Amino acid sequence: MDVWSAPEERHKGWYLHLMVPNTKGESYAWLDPSRLYCSTEGLQDCVKDLLQPFQGDSIDIVAGIDAMGFVLGSSIATFLNKGFLVIRKAGHLCVTTKALSFSDYSGTEKTIEVRTDILKKGLRVLLVDQWIETGGTMKAAIKLLEDQGVVIAGIAAICIENSEVGKWIKENYKCSHCVPEHLQGEFDAHYLKSFALYHSNSP
Amino acid sequence: MDVWSAPEERHKGWYLHLMVPNTKGESYAWLDPSRLYCSTEGLQDCVKDLLQPFQGDSIDIVAGIDAMGFVLGSSIATFLNKGFLVIRKAGHLCVTTKALSFSDYSGTEKTIEVRTDILKKGLRVLLVDQWIETGGTMKAAIKLLEDQGVVIAGIAAICIENSEVGKWIKENYKCSHCVPEHLQGEFDAHYLKSFALYHSNSP
Repeated sequence: MDVWSAPEERHKGWYLHLMVPNTKGESYAWLDPSRLYCSTEGLQDCVKDLLQPFQGDSIDIVAGIDAMGFVLGSSIATFLNKGFLVIRKAGHLCVTTKALSFSDYSGTEKTIEVRTDILKKGLRVLLVDQWIETGGTMKAAIKLLEDQGVVIAGIAAICIENSEVGKWIKENYKCSHCVPEHLQGEFDAHYLKSFALYHSNSP
Repeated sequence: MDVWSAPEERHKGWYLHLMVPNTKGESYAWLDPSRLYCSTEGLQDCVKDLLQPFQGDSIDIVAGIDAMGFVLGSSIATFLNKGFLVIRKAGHLCVTTKALSFSDYSGTEKTIEVRTDILKKGLRVLLVDQWIETGGTMKAAIKLLEDQGVVIAGIAAICIENSEVGKWIKENYKCSHCVPEHLQGEFDAHYLKSFALYHSNSP
């Protein structure tokens, strides 16, 4: 039984139409990307699109950010035949870690941490999260890894919004995302008429 | 640069020796399995061992439990060429969900939830978590899915401890795990001399 069938023509980002907007109100994220993972071809094409700019690049390991970055990150690691490193919200890893605190978009202090026992100077890491909105978490993850001597081989996320930090990330690191240029503005604006996008394009 | 090289002989569960025990005290889990994912061969062989009993079985989609079940689950989905469904801690999914509350081993009430828009009666789901200890979360996830008419095609976790619910899961569902029989007792007892195991076997 298929959850969905994919469209015949699978252009870059076709699976973005499988995402669904918030129906629960302002205390939730404006969009739920995770629905696209339920589609076999959606998940596969998303991963392939994210990896396309890194073909031939030297990548030692893939890292993903807790929690949704684990889904895409682990799929990417498996596709690339690489190992996978978790960057966790603080308080979970029972081993020696380095932690870094930062303020998110709402001013709330958050802390992420990473194990130190496998990090080596010069290790080339492809860093993955589901979505980069204000960019605070991703910037903290970059600093956390770079402080250990790790090289950020690339950054991958379904969307990197053109927020202040999002633009900084795009300017300073090799990045990949899945959003075709003509749709970037809609995502930057958290375009709630994506309801219409969804209802007109959902298979 | 390799994080680790794998041993020449890769018997079932060899990568369990890459896990590390708690060094932070009693408020943390007794073991950190996630270190094995950092090894390319460790992650691959773990996924292959977990899938071995399900070869030829009909599986429509893989589901993973927030957060560490996302790592193994998404890797398994990618390996199987299937989609991936997230079972989340409550409060994150911005779309219509069904939720289920349960008490964990410490008596703390927790709630997990799943989107309902892709669940169909008879959908066959392979349900994945990192580790089944008391089994409360996995039992709740099973009920949450079965209440929607979903068929549990199988349960996969690195270890299913012989706790009361762990045994119930093994008796009532097709299961896979990575622990060779002669080591099961050590894991059931949370054998802290796994320190010794680790130090004598780590590559």
